Amino acid sequence: MRKHISGFSNPTVKYLRSLREKKHRKRAGQFLVEGLRLLEDARVSGYAPRQLVMAENAERNAAAKDLLTRLESEIGAQGGEVITTTPDILSKITGKSNTQSVVGVFDEFDTSLARLDRGTAQIWLVAQDLRDPGNLGTMLRTGDAVGAGGLILIDDCADPFSAEAVRASMGAVFTQSLAQARWSDFVAWLRDGEGQLVAASLRDAVPYRGAPYEAPCLILVGNESQGLPEAYEAECDLRVTMPMRGRADSLNAAVAGAVLVYEVLDALE
Amino acid sequence: MRKHISGFSNPTVKYLRSLREKKHRKRAGQFLVEGLRLLEDARVSGYAPRQLVMAENAERNAAAKDLLTRLESEIGAQGGEVITTTPDILSKITGKSNTQSVVGVFDEFDTSLARLDRGTAQIWLVAQDLRDPGNLGTMLRTGDAVGAGGLILIDDCADPFSAEAVRASMGAVFTQSLAQARWSDFVAWLRDGEGQLVAASLRDAVPYRGAPYEAPCLILVGNESQGLPEAYEAECDLRVTMPMRGRADSLNAAVAGAVLVYEVLDALE
Repeated sequence: MRKHISGFSNPTVKYLRSLREKKHRKRAGQFLVEGLRLLEDARVSGYAPRQLVMAENAERNAAAKDLLTRLESEIGAQGGEVITTTPDILSKITGKSNTQSVVGVFDEFDTSLARLDRGTAQIWLVAQDLRDPGNLGTMLRTGDAVGAGGLILIDDCADPFSAEAVRASMGAVFTQSLAQARWSDFVAWLRDGEGQLVAASLRDAVPYRGAPYEAPCLILVGNESQGLPEAYEAECDLRVTMPMRGRADSLNAAVAGAVLVYEVLDALE
Repeated sequence: MRKHISGFSNPTVKYLRSLREKKHRKRAGQFLVEGLRLLEDARVSGYAPRQLVMAENAERNAAAKDLLTRLESEIGAQGGEVITTTPDILSKITGKSNTQSVVGVFDEFDTSLARLDRGTAQIWLVAQDLRDPGNLGTMLRTGDAVGAGGLILIDDCADPFSAEAVRASMGAVFTQSLAQARWSDFVAWLRDGEGQLVAASLRDAVPYRGAPYEAPCLILVGNESQGLPEAYEAECDLRVTMPMRGRADSLNAAVAGAVLVYEVLDALE
């Protein structure tokens, strides 16, 4: 059963718009996923939206219509809601003039560290104070590509449920486990089981090629400007260094993580 | 000799504001560099701005004052201009409410392919239709880190002189050579000398680890959504494949380029 919204001042529009802001997402425990491609990624990973908001022109071709029909029946089976509206109102919800024609509303995932089972994967990514949602989404995407278990967000990272992080993840937000923790809680969890914490570092480090990586290997990437605090590096079981041949002394955080994780992938096989 | 601007409607303010747009940058042949850190990167690489625009509060500490004094004397020696203004006007120029306190105006570089000397480096990066200025800047930064010669932009890439690309490059826009060309012109240039063109590909590819890389090695990265056209891949001397263990079938373009370029760096040493 579809519901139609034609007024900009409709409370549902106001609610959905509010989900663009982190504080409202946290309060509501929900986030937005924009576009058919990401919604299909979610569906394949077993996630159905609570609400689906479609512009009237969303079913513009057979493939879109087919996907929306499947989504609609899944949502219906789970008691969710399908809303049709005008393209202008959908633009108001997403805040983009050239918006996607469909948006899904999902419940945020439980990101407690206790839920992670480190034994399910050889590689895990860990980000500390990573502020750029694009970098965060890119790390999720890289994690998916190497078959990592998930991404652990330490201290004050960008919100993984922001539109930009979800988009940059290319759907990996639905395939990778996510956890959020303060550093001290993370270290307590880490040392309560197996796991090698590895970081790229200039201090007391060995070359990243051929370093003695061990599974489960947790690859720690620091803040974009500051890198890792010295105490955090000191906690690492292995510090590795990557060649820096130019004037720069560092790589983009998501890039550094990816170069390292591909080395670890090769080493652990 | 400093010049002070206090009015929002000053023609210089209007001109500088216009440089935020690509079409105006192309017409003027100039671009903006925001912030002391990037200006220092430029200075170290031998580039002085034609104009330096400072907010009245720019010299807020000894380090800033010291750098600005050096910049000012270099600009003066080259006939450039130093402008002081209010923080509000500087915000209007950069379009950012929380802006840097200093902006430099630089002449765009000559990006003709004929100027590149491929013999000066073992590694070159090549991007085709790369649309995200952040990805473009990140590739420049990675190129700097591995000691690459520069970045060749094929077809319709983002503008390397946009504020976002310059910022993401972390100053590498001043250390890496830049060239722009259509594909056919690039191929003609490439085949007129030595050089191995390498791309990540799923078609007829060998594993990227241990592939027979040769210097000068040109690493080709394609568009964020479409990847490389089939004909472009076919032109490559070597097609390599990276492990993809998840649901995703690709990496972020800048990440894929970085993983590959670090492998090539290791192979060529």
